[in-house]
Amino acid sequence: MSAPQRTARKQVVIVGMGFGGMHAARELAGSQCEVLLLDRNNYHLFQPLLYQVATAGLEQESIAYPLRALIRNWYNLQFQMREVTGLDLDGKRVLTDQGAVEYDYLILAGGSVTNFFGNAGVARHAFDLKRLADAERLRNAILTTFELAVQEADPQRRRELLTFVVVGGGPTGVEFAGALAELIRYVFRKDYPDLNLAECRVMLLEAAPTLLGAMPDRLRRYAEKRLRQMGVEVRCNCLVADATQDSVVLADGETIASRTLFWSAGVKAAPLADLLPGEKGPGGRVVVTDRLTLPGHDEVYLVGDMACALHDGKPLPMMAPVAMQQGRHAARSIIVREQRAAPAPFQYVDKGSMATIGRSTAVAMAFGLSFSGFVAWLVWLLLHLYYLIGFRNRAVVLLNWAWYYWFHERQVRLITAASGRNTSGGADGQDSNL
Amino acid sequence: MSAPQRTARKQVVIVGMGFGGMHAARELAGSQCEVLLLDRNNYHLFQPLLYQVATAGLEQESIAYPLRALIRNWYNLQFQMREVTGLDLDGKRVLTDQGAVEYDYLILAGGSVTNFFGNAGVARHAFDLKRLADAERLRNAILTTFELAVQEADPQRRRELLTFVVVGGGPTGVEFAGALAELIRYVFRKDYPDLNLAECRVMLLEAAPTLLGAMPDRLRRYAEKRLRQMGVEVRCNCLVADATQDSVVLADGETIASRTLFWSAGVKAAPLADLLPGEKGPGGRVVVTDRLTLPGHDEVYLVGDMACALHDGKPLPMMAPVAMQQGRHAARSIIVREQRAAPAPFQYVDKGSMATIGRSTAVAMAFGLSFSGFVAWLVWLLLHLYYLIGFRNRAVVLLNWAWYYWFHERQVRLITAASGRNTSGGADGQDSNL
Repeated sequence: MSAPQRTARKQVVIVGMGFGGMHAARELAGSQCEVLLLDRNNYHLFQPLLYQVATAGLEQESIAYPLRALIRNWYNLQFQMREVTGLDLDGKRVLTDQGAVEYDYLILAGGSVTNFFGNAGVARHAFDLKRLADAERLRNAILTTFELAVQEADPQRRRELLTFVVVGGGPTGVEFAGALAELIRYVFRKDYPDLNLAECRVMLLEAAPTLLGAMPDRLRRYAEKRLRQMGVEVRCNCLVADATQDSVVLADGETIASRTLFWSAGVKAAPLADLLPGEKGPGGRVVVTDRLTLPGHDEVYLVGDMACALHDGKPLPMMAPVAMQQGRHAARSIIVREQRAAPAPFQYVDKGSMATIGRSTAVAMAFGLSFSGFVAWLVWLLLHLYYLIGFRNRAVVLLNWAWYYWFHERQVRLITAASGRNTSGGADGQDSNL
Repeated sequence: MSAPQRTARKQVVIVGMGFGGMHAARELAGSQCEVLLLDRNNYHLFQPLLYQVATAGLEQESIAYPLRALIRNWYNLQFQMREVTGLDLDGKRVLTDQGAVEYDYLILAGGSVTNFFGNAGVARHAFDLKRLADAERLRNAILTTFELAVQEADPQRRRELLTFVVVGGGPTGVEFAGALAELIRYVFRKDYPDLNLAECRVMLLEAAPTLLGAMPDRLRRYAEKRLRQMGVEVRCNCLVADATQDSVVLADGETIASRTLFWSAGVKAAPLADLLPGEKGPGGRVVVTDRLTLPGHDEVYLVGDMACALHDGKPLPMMAPVAMQQGRHAARSIIVREQRAAPAPFQYVDKGSMATIGRSTAVAMAFGLSFSGFVAWLVWLLLHLYYLIGFRNRAVVLLNWAWYYWFHERQVRLITAASGRNTSGGADGQDSNL
């Protein structure tokens, strides 16, 4: 009942069931190893769609999948809901809140957390999107500001409520800003006929000279043009210096009155990385060997956002496809080693990247080509449906998307927290227990 | 932007958008009155299906419908998300957290809250099901106890985790106990192969001599037999005296070791009723005239669980059909009075009642007949789909039900709260802000 019994079969422990951990587990399913999966949550979260939960497009349950449902057809996989509290690398043990677990091989796939770059004001007042509860909290906050604004007689306070500042022009910032602008333009226009929507501002601030820095120039310009057409105020070369409950302060001294700040300007390795010895790369990521192992511990693999693996001399980006490929590679390496063969070094295959801007509008790089507009959007849609786990989840998501596509309607605009009203300032939301 | 302007048209204020308030609003839609709807939530909640959210069968979003979507086709309906803090009956004003609102007619439909009958131990440690957050919290607690039990080596503590005590043999208690027993028998059996499910106990305690006291004898016996076949321990003539974090104490002194106590043994009028003058009936309900008005204030209507209306000399039960009929009657009375005619007294039409016990099994009274088994279940299913609001919600619910019917699978078994682990004892859950 407690920790699984040690057997002659090798014990693999996987920490973290995001994209990296899950793809490692799937690869090890049916192998000769006993595999124990650990996660603090009992579900795999499809993080790329969190922004749609935050903008009332999807119910949170449709982008999460119970881990026990995922593994129950595989006799050699086990799951335990635990919080990892430490590592004993010499004793080959993972320490958790429910006791220690021994391993022969360890795959660390703890992912990343939001990087506020030490800015306490921003950390306290900004919303971010890493966990499921973050998305629900942000949705509640957006809806609550509109409910308050429609009852607010003071134009200054109303404008403060209706100004939304998105920081970070990467895919998450672009997707969130676009989805929020459409929520206001298509849905809130009907919900709040008394409100002058010209008072609403969605601002997208990016420190670099352009949005979507990893994309080709043509796609960057397309994304920026489409966002502007949708009413998003895009500002590049714009640095945020501080934030309070009702304002965002820029590096040049300008103060934007706003009650809602969404921060997607950076991620860093999960705190678990701090427990590991050796060199750290940018964002606290653990520098790994070309086999994805921890230097000096070739039974310990690091995959996904926690690992700093080099590709053409540069660290690989922190994104889902990298994590999935690394997870599968680590798992295959273990199987190969158990067959007394030598595993190959990890080779990243760049299949491209993409970002949705709005309904029927996206940018995508794939197969060495760049797409924009409807075709890119269709590719985005099909790929996301494909990677989403579970037929029921796919059906519910497709139903929601079809509904939105045809009727311009997003139905999940519920303020679900009892403390909904108090979370209208980012700070309280951030501190709440949700 | 703030409170709507007074016009020559009469102003109707409806407090509470449950079944009573919503049906009143629909009846007044398109009438000559200006109607302002107030609720502390921005959605109408379909309470009869809360127990399915709590037992991982439905996502919470599928049983709630945004009020602004409900009203936006009607020019004379407005909604404001407000908490009512007081009433000024002589000044014809409703006091709220966002200022006062004037009315010509007032419809109070504040509903009910759980009645713990002054038992502080039970109130502190029991779960109940009135709000959306209650259902999510209870689902998180049930799933968390299983995650803890599968890692628990001590048989006594494991048994304590796996014992679920349901108090109250009315429809809610019967439906919840049946749904929980099926969740364990069909779904958890596959999810927790290491757990001996014979250690799981679902107990249903009822103070009266039989379950479902309002039903004919044949249906009561059928429900009890089916529940026993599903493994539910039914105890009638059984009174709960107290509860702690890990036990339920009965009136006869017996102590049941359990970490999860679900209380559905009673409801009472919402605290709003305490603000009203005049006679109170059982459960603090406000005794109303045969026109559903507050005695001495014929511009104030009370509908649903807050109102104590007599039918054949007995108070009407606190259930959705009564609230819906009363809501419509109050609204029609206002329209009739504005046409300078005299409204009729309220006449309750008893269309029957029903309770689902499990998959393909229900009991129902309707059209003077009593049904049990598959036919009753089908009637239950169609009626609930019919009364659920919104095509998308119906489609998602039907998808979930079909999935469960054919695959014995409930997909929403996610522990969503960050504090999921701490809520395994009812107490913490109850106190949390969720």
